[in-house]
Amino acid sequence: MTDAVTLIRAKRDGHRLGDDDISWLFEAYAKGEVADEQMSALLMAIYFQGLDGDELRTWTAAMIASGDRLDLSPIKKPTVDKHSTGGVGDKVSLILAPLVAACGAAVPQLSGRGLGHTGGTLDKLESIPGFRTALTPAETIETLKAAGCVICAAGSGLAPADRRLYALRDVTGTVESIPLIASSIMSKKIAEGTSALVLDVKVGTGAFMKSRDQARELAQTMVALGEEHQVRTRALLTAMDTPLGRAVGNAVEVEESVAALNGQGPPDLMEVTFALAAQMLALARINEDPAAAVADGRALAAYRRMVIAQGGDPDAPLPRAAHVQTALPAPADGWLTRLDALAVGTAAWRLGAGRARKEDAVSAAAGVICLAKPGDRVREGQPLLELRADDPGRFGPALAALATAVTVSEEPPPPLPSPILEYIGS
Amino acid sequence: MTDAVTLIRAKRDGHRLGDDDISWLFEAYAKGEVADEQMSALLMAIYFQGLDGDELRTWTAAMIASGDRLDLSPIKKPTVDKHSTGGVGDKVSLILAPLVAACGAAVPQLSGRGLGHTGGTLDKLESIPGFRTALTPAETIETLKAAGCVICAAGSGLAPADRRLYALRDVTGTVESIPLIASSIMSKKIAEGTSALVLDVKVGTGAFMKSRDQARELAQTMVALGEEHQVRTRALLTAMDTPLGRAVGNAVEVEESVAALNGQGPPDLMEVTFALAAQMLALARINEDPAAAVADGRALAAYRRMVIAQGGDPDAPLPRAAHVQTALPAPADGWLTRLDALAVGTAAWRLGAGRARKEDAVSAAAGVICLAKPGDRVREGQPLLELRADDPGRFGPALAALATAVTVSEEPPPPLPSPILEYIGS
Repeated sequence: MTDAVTLIRAKRDGHRLGDDDISWLFEAYAKGEVADEQMSALLMAIYFQGLDGDELRTWTAAMIASGDRLDLSPIKKPTVDKHSTGGVGDKVSLILAPLVAACGAAVPQLSGRGLGHTGGTLDKLESIPGFRTALTPAETIETLKAAGCVICAAGSGLAPADRRLYALRDVTGTVESIPLIASSIMSKKIAEGTSALVLDVKVGTGAFMKSRDQARELAQTMVALGEEHQVRTRALLTAMDTPLGRAVGNAVEVEESVAALNGQGPPDLMEVTFALAAQMLALARINEDPAAAVADGRALAAYRRMVIAQGGDPDAPLPRAAHVQTALPAPADGWLTRLDALAVGTAAWRLGAGRARKEDAVSAAAGVICLAKPGDRVREGQPLLELRADDPGRFGPALAALATAVTVSEEPPPPLPSPILEYIGS
Repeated sequence: MTDAVTLIRAKRDGHRLGDDDISWLFEAYAKGEVADEQMSALLMAIYFQGLDGDELRTWTAAMIASGDRLDLSPIKKPTVDKHSTGGVGDKVSLILAPLVAACGAAVPQLSGRGLGHTGGTLDKLESIPGFRTALTPAETIETLKAAGCVICAAGSGLAPADRRLYALRDVTGTVESIPLIASSIMSKKIAEGTSALVLDVKVGTGAFMKSRDQARELAQTMVALGEEHQVRTRALLTAMDTPLGRAVGNAVEVEESVAALNGQGPPDLMEVTFALAAQMLALARINEDPAAAVADGRALAAYRRMVIAQGGDPDAPLPRAAHVQTALPAPADGWLTRLDALAVGTAAWRLGAGRARKEDAVSAAAGVICLAKPGDRVREGQPLLELRADDPGRFGPALAALATAVTVSEEPPPPLPSPILEYIGS
């Protein structure tokens, strides 16, 4: 038997919280016996003092135990999922889930919404007319059976303690804590019931993790948590200094994803997608070539089945922005050597593609098209971006975010490095 | 224009909060635009990152500005107050306020209640039949005019932000922060309107500050805050390893205080009292000998005037405990060399003299009498303490707190060191 002040002081002073302490905490928080102001003080103490491996395992288990677990036993295929920590132009899930499904795995991808400058997979898919992301557990299983993959919202029954803690962290300056990030992501993924998981941990200006050391620590922490909960888990660190592909927004990213499934994807996007697919198939013990599944149309077919199963029309035209303008003329002849992901992500967000607060709506059509990418030859005055918005008043704030977004050099740059930085896990 | 999350993150990351930030914070908190869970996260960030001198001055000023300041201009004498950080058997205020008043100063002592093992001055005085501690500002001024001193509760109009922050700190594990302690004490004392202030910062097992370095830092912080707000301030560090005097409780401490005002005070209690009186008189620029004011009865007369002005009867018998028992027989012949203040304070608290929660009532009669003090010769089996309680069920828990409270040595101890450890301030 303990109490909230004792636990807060113990963590504040650098002591370990025992298994019983953490179990008590989550039960008492659910019953309202631990108040939000006590939980937020504890979260800030954790920000400073951390959680060790044992504490984190128990903390994550308590979040999973706060709700239901999805039962994927009706699915007679190996299940494998992917999670990205979020980047600019990161539409990989839209391509990867049907691609891996086409190779014979089942991909149960329960996702979140975007907040801030990184877009959300659900926001992107909802730009498809009719597409529904709020599915019941039964509908989730049915879609998975019909299409081999499903991309929908994590229902309120999965890890509800995480939902409440995340909302609290968001308003109390306690988001940026590696153990709290790791337990938040992994509690939802473990509750989702997947047998295997590949994590795409983004590093760079457009990512939440700005340094490779931080990203590696987060990846290692999540891989350990997955393995401890019997989910086979690997992670890739991938670069997020420049937008992935050319489209940043919602409908524009769906469009680019469909092109990719048709074999017309930009090279950086395809390199990340195929690297993640290879890891997912390895964990699912499926010996298939994902490039072949694109080339012969099976991946696109799986995508269309998924869209239809979730109420969408894959042939309906996507929303188009009322206002389009080119921007960012190249300052000189030369080569584009830098296109800053954070600046482009912020511009897309300000154009309406993202939300500042959870309750905000997003624009399906708003976004940015990168007319050039690093490595491209450019001519002085050539516009480097195209901006799209429903409301022309959005262009000014978006342009302000782009003031120092690009570098054009006289010399051609060295060959672009691979966006795949590191593999973590056994 | 800022927002709570920006301020919390700035402090969390070790940055300074600007004057405008802090002013905005307190206004927004008063209006409910900053929530308790945000303030508690900020308080925990301050626990780890501190507040520098400029931040602390602004923070304290904002707490003062949250309410009224007592106007002592009707008092035509120099005003000087004293504050103790709290100790076991610390009845110094009951003797010191009338003593300094008898020497010609006015002592406006607005006090708090005890919480935990240290008693509260108001709880002690309320054991006097009829004594009222809840005075209006007008009654406070009238008592000060009539008696030269007043000891009453700080009204809800003085530094209300401190009241709210203190309640929050109490439940969120953020009490033990030197800048937060300093601003809490000093905001109330500055709002009280005194021109000068002497601080008794206790150090030792029975004090909140366990180390001399901590105590010195707190004292220096408070002296600087007072001087910055035009209150002439000095501090003494005094020892709190053993109870002050022989009585620990409420009525029993009033009794010992009256004895002290009659010239019968125990030496350690009188040494601390006279040292504080000398500092207060120096700050009030009054050249009087406090010992003479005790010897000729002026101090006792001032005490009686104050008790009568606050509705009390100085001649009424004090409450007596229904149950009294001796305890802690000396384990051997020898000298008592240690009597632990924390253990005795905890025992008195468990007997009913203190409260565990703000809303608890205290027993007027409960407490501990130290039958021997360090330096005394003792015989094997001689009881070292007397315990008093209204409810005999309290004796067991009180005895449990005393298990390792004393040391008896075969050799006589060296002469006792002075309880006055250090002077801080100009």
